[in-house]
Amino acid sequence: MRTSYHEQLDRLVTRLLRTSRLVADMMDRAGTALVEADGELAREVIADGATLERVKTEAEGHAHAILALQSPVATDLRVVLAAIHAVGDLDRMGRLAIHVAEAVQRRYPARVVPHVLVPRFVEMGRIAVWLAVMAGQAVQSRDAVLARTLISVDDDMDDLHRTLFTVIDYQNWAHGTTKAVDAALLSRYYERFADHAVSLAKQTTFVVTGCPKWTDVVPAQGGARIA
Amino acid sequence: MRTSYHEQLDRLVTRLLRTSRLVADMMDRAGTALVEADGELAREVIADGATLERVKTEAEGHAHAILALQSPVATDLRVVLAAIHAVGDLDRMGRLAIHVAEAVQRRYPARVVPHVLVPRFVEMGRIAVWLAVMAGQAVQSRDAVLARTLISVDDDMDDLHRTLFTVIDYQNWAHGTTKAVDAALLSRYYERFADHAVSLAKQTTFVVTGCPKWTDVVPAQGGARIA
Repeated sequence: MRTSYHEQLDRLVTRLLRTSRLVADMMDRAGTALVEADGELAREVIADGATLERVKTEAEGHAHAILALQSPVATDLRVVLAAIHAVGDLDRMGRLAIHVAEAVQRRYPARVVPHVLVPRFVEMGRIAVWLAVMAGQAVQSRDAVLARTLISVDDDMDDLHRTLFTVIDYQNWAHGTTKAVDAALLSRYYERFADHAVSLAKQTTFVVTGCPKWTDVVPAQGGARIA
Repeated sequence: MRTSYHEQLDRLVTRLLRTSRLVADMMDRAGTALVEADGELAREVIADGATLERVKTEAEGHAHAILALQSPVATDLRVVLAAIHAVGDLDRMGRLAIHVAEAVQRRYPARVVPHVLVPRFVEMGRIAVWLAVMAGQAVQSRDAVLARTLISVDDDMDDLHRTLFTVIDYQNWAHGTTKAVDAALLSRYYERFADHAVSLAKQTTFVVTGCPKWTDVVPAQGGARIA
């Protein structure tokens, strides 16, 4: 009975890991569609919304069933609660990838972002995908230190988001209001995607320590960057 | 024992109702600060972030304690799960109100939005506050029909968000790129605030029916609008 119960918990965590890979892949393809103005690839990402919805509903149902049937306590209860929060984060991450793809479709066959911003969005995409993959691994391995490094990388994303406005506001922006607004909203989607990845990884700390306040339990370590 | 237990559940729902009023009030004041370029009022909304954080942590701790100590089942379990989701929505709503206030502070003493957009943002603010108040009432009363009407009102918000882009894109926009980007992001904050209010109200349906799929249980009814 206990073995079966822990198998249930393990299966729930495996679901989260698979879902983190799905949303990482969605954002990866959405980013490629954005940079290459690939309307077909954007369409595929949007179509993945159905898979995301199914995976989310199954994971939530699974977590609720464990609570209702097993009444877990202590660490096991925290695993289930963390999973419930994680499903919410993963769902939002997938939706944000879809928002990027929808922006590509809205302007197709034109490019959404001007050439001058392409390297910036390539970098934001690289960080977003890395964060989603690593957040999934942190949840599976319950590695609070790995989870902690995500904050430093998220700082890079925040810097990219913040400095975009400097580019749009002051540097002889010659691409019109529509492209400026599109770029600002896209940048916001990437930044929120990264925030949710960090929130996902933070659940690991809660599972390990029972303490929802991240900074209380894992000492800050500067300088972590994507290899 | 049972009485005390149900008192615990009632107190948890009361916390949610109070928090919904807090975030409604935060968005109300943020909207006033936006329209009147009131830097001091914006500062107060931002300062409310500390209250929001405390209220959120207490509500989450309360929900987790009920799960750990009482092992609720059936409707009671759903009340606690809905509360956990609701806390997440309310936290984001408060954060979005703070984002509006931060935009006011960033441009102070200048106005963030040009006069031509003021009536639009007044209307978005009115809808946002109404949705937050009604979502809280739907959660407390478990009134799934009241909850359902929120979707129609959220459609009004979506229309306002969507049509803003038409104004910025095509109608001789003479206010510069920065004001266009600010307006687009602010509009997005209001739209997301409304989405979270709807998500909050949807928890009611889950509590009443156990069915997470909103549309399966409450028939659509068109035409609901704010009085």
